[in-house]
Amino acid sequence: MKELFRVLTPTDALQLLHANLTPQIQAERVPLAAALDRVLAEDLIAPLDVPDFARSTMDGFAVRAPDTYGASEGLPAYLKVTGEIFMGTRADVSVGVGETVRIATGGMLPAGADAVVMVELTQDVDASTIEVVKPVAPGENVLQVGEDIMAGTAVLPLGHTLRPQDLGGLASLGIVEVVVARKLRVAIVSGGDEVVPPDQTPGPGQIRDVNTSTIVALVQRAGHEPVPLGVAPDDYEAIASLARRGMAQADVVILSAGSSVSVRDMTADVITSLGKPGILVHGVSLRPGKPTILAVADGKPVFGLPGNPVSCMVTFDLFVGPTLALLSGAEAPRRQSVSARLARNIASAAGREDYVQVKLESRDGEVWAVPVFGKSGLIYTLIRADGMVRVELDAGGLSEGTMVPVILF
Amino acid sequence: MKELFRVLTPTDALQLLHANLTPQIQAERVPLAAALDRVLAEDLIAPLDVPDFARSTMDGFAVRAPDTYGASEGLPAYLKVTGEIFMGTRADVSVGVGETVRIATGGMLPAGADAVVMVELTQDVDASTIEVVKPVAPGENVLQVGEDIMAGTAVLPLGHTLRPQDLGGLASLGIVEVVVARKLRVAIVSGGDEVVPPDQTPGPGQIRDVNTSTIVALVQRAGHEPVPLGVAPDDYEAIASLARRGMAQADVVILSAGSSVSVRDMTADVITSLGKPGILVHGVSLRPGKPTILAVADGKPVFGLPGNPVSCMVTFDLFVGPTLALLSGAEAPRRQSVSARLARNIASAAGREDYVQVKLESRDGEVWAVPVFGKSGLIYTLIRADGMVRVELDAGGLSEGTMVPVILF
Repeated sequence: MKELFRVLTPTDALQLLHANLTPQIQAERVPLAAALDRVLAEDLIAPLDVPDFARSTMDGFAVRAPDTYGASEGLPAYLKVTGEIFMGTRADVSVGVGETVRIATGGMLPAGADAVVMVELTQDVDASTIEVVKPVAPGENVLQVGEDIMAGTAVLPLGHTLRPQDLGGLASLGIVEVVVARKLRVAIVSGGDEVVPPDQTPGPGQIRDVNTSTIVALVQRAGHEPVPLGVAPDDYEAIASLARRGMAQADVVILSAGSSVSVRDMTADVITSLGKPGILVHGVSLRPGKPTILAVADGKPVFGLPGNPVSCMVTFDLFVGPTLALLSGAEAPRRQSVSARLARNIASAAGREDYVQVKLESRDGEVWAVPVFGKSGLIYTLIRADGMVRVELDAGGLSEGTMVPVILF
Repeated sequence: MKELFRVLTPTDALQLLHANLTPQIQAERVPLAAALDRVLAEDLIAPLDVPDFARSTMDGFAVRAPDTYGASEGLPAYLKVTGEIFMGTRADVSVGVGETVRIATGGMLPAGADAVVMVELTQDVDASTIEVVKPVAPGENVLQVGEDIMAGTAVLPLGHTLRPQDLGGLASLGIVEVVVARKLRVAIVSGGDEVVPPDQTPGPGQIRDVNTSTIVALVQRAGHEPVPLGVAPDDYEAIASLARRGMAQADVVILSAGSSVSVRDMTADVITSLGKPGILVHGVSLRPGKPTILAVADGKPVFGLPGNPVSCMVTFDLFVGPTLALLSGAEAPRRQSVSARLARNIASAAGREDYVQVKLESRDGEVWAVPVFGKSGLIYTLIRADGMVRVELDAGGLSEGTMVPVILF
């Protein structure tokens, strides 16, 4: 069996693939409103201080801190109110000894003042006098110039995936466009004499194409652009023709090939024909997902994913996702997971990494991971499940009651 | 202080808001390729069996199971090979006693056969005879009709958010379009005399608008459509005018109003003017985020979120996100979280729910949550952080070394 010629662990397989790729990031400029979840293709440096003036963080009174020292309920400090700071304007009053001016949260600290007393710790004595019942230290309730971020500081690094708060932070700096990695085009070819597109009625012995729809969505979720090319019959020339179209139109090619050994061998031959160095990994010590092919053709990664829908999803997650990240210059995608208590034993062969679908259930205030078993090739085990539990290469299984991380779908 | 008239816990506040909303879900039909992360507005029932014919799950030989009983390496069962099943075609041979036909993974089980023997457990004797070295049970290595999903079974319920594997599952049933909840339009009004749009240069005492960019992205991430309406000065009529436009154009209105008490009071007056029943919650026992306003005006939720960027993000997550889910008929959004060990004590006042920003760090193979402290109003604490740790209402704090769930941003 051809596919056994190079069986690696999932980690080694991915490493070998990545060692054969030289990411050349293509960038484009987008406005902030279109930048969510995009990957920065530049290091961003703060062009200015935020804030660029000292600001109050409280509603209250701007003071010279020493004027409040020793103040208490019994012996308040009396200060003369000489004015008010209006929001969004230059503070053009200045605070002398024994003086204070009203200031609202966000207001610009006036000259002379070095702290703000919260309004709750003051009392009006008359129209132009307040008493302060607690001392403040210099700098208290004030954001200093550059305290949020200083001009010249690194804000966000190349490779960072932009989150909502990042976009707010960039807005504060007046950065309204960013240079991000272009979305990768990912060609998807499905194969199989028995497979028809989902909008067609299968004949006897035929089924509808499942994996294209799943892979299209996985590519979308990874932030890239799927290019579904349709279904090829189990015929070398038919598969090769679609695969070559994928090489021409896309940055990455995924062949979701049939499930029988002979069709997988044909897929391997097609991949070999696409370019050098060709197939790097043919078989991974992984279940499900053993008959995975990882290849590089003329600088582009080519994946032969197993036809079984569960395998297809697991291997996308293990190999395609991290490769899309690599090619975008992104930090590796962080798998979202929750902790749960395993509801039954999971057996596993040594020397193989296993992924078991689980459903999350709440019992007595605890989250339990209940394995969803099913024969190979079932689609609905994935739909009934909420995530996967990984059984490490040489763990030999996991015991009921263990706390495990559940990688959410 | 007006805002103290109704201070509720976050949970009670959300409940009160939701009790005053009557979701009327508007639906639209979309193709599968546009359905990722959309919320189903219909219960989906399987229109047919999957598979709709018995299929082999292995490459091997279709047999009558009893013909293999007692077979072993020493005493194999001999079977006559009478044909081969071709993929994607009707199995028009039938298997008699002592007979077998070749079959590949996914092939249609022929009449007479009730199990498949893996090719690895057979040996060719001559061109038309094999020996079988291990017995199979009836049904072994076969997917029965409807074993994946049976016609008439509930597939996915109304309110389910569609994942990649769900789309694959629907494709297998020939369901190529789905009815989903229309994306909600969320109007966003920023306020403040000191606030200018991010593409303008602030004058003295002014800052750029941070919250609109963050809220736009939070709405996008929740799967809805942001409608940013710009920045209003601290003027009743200016804010009211944008808020009324929001009521006319959108399903939900968010006012991200100034940070001072007087501006918050003005925002409250504007919200009261928008429609009945008006303000339901004015102040939440929460830090950051206490001065949050929750209201309903003529059936639409209206939020007055604090101007402080950290508060704005926390309160969006606690109140706006779950409300968008309610109005879409969606199951509550599941917060993504990871477990981490707390790197230092966090103090908290009783009777208040606290959210503390943390950075995740790996130390000795463990993930630690390191609190990122900073003065109120800082933007970059959010950017330096990876997530938040919640301190429950009456926990009185959390101790260093405790394992805590970190809600990821």
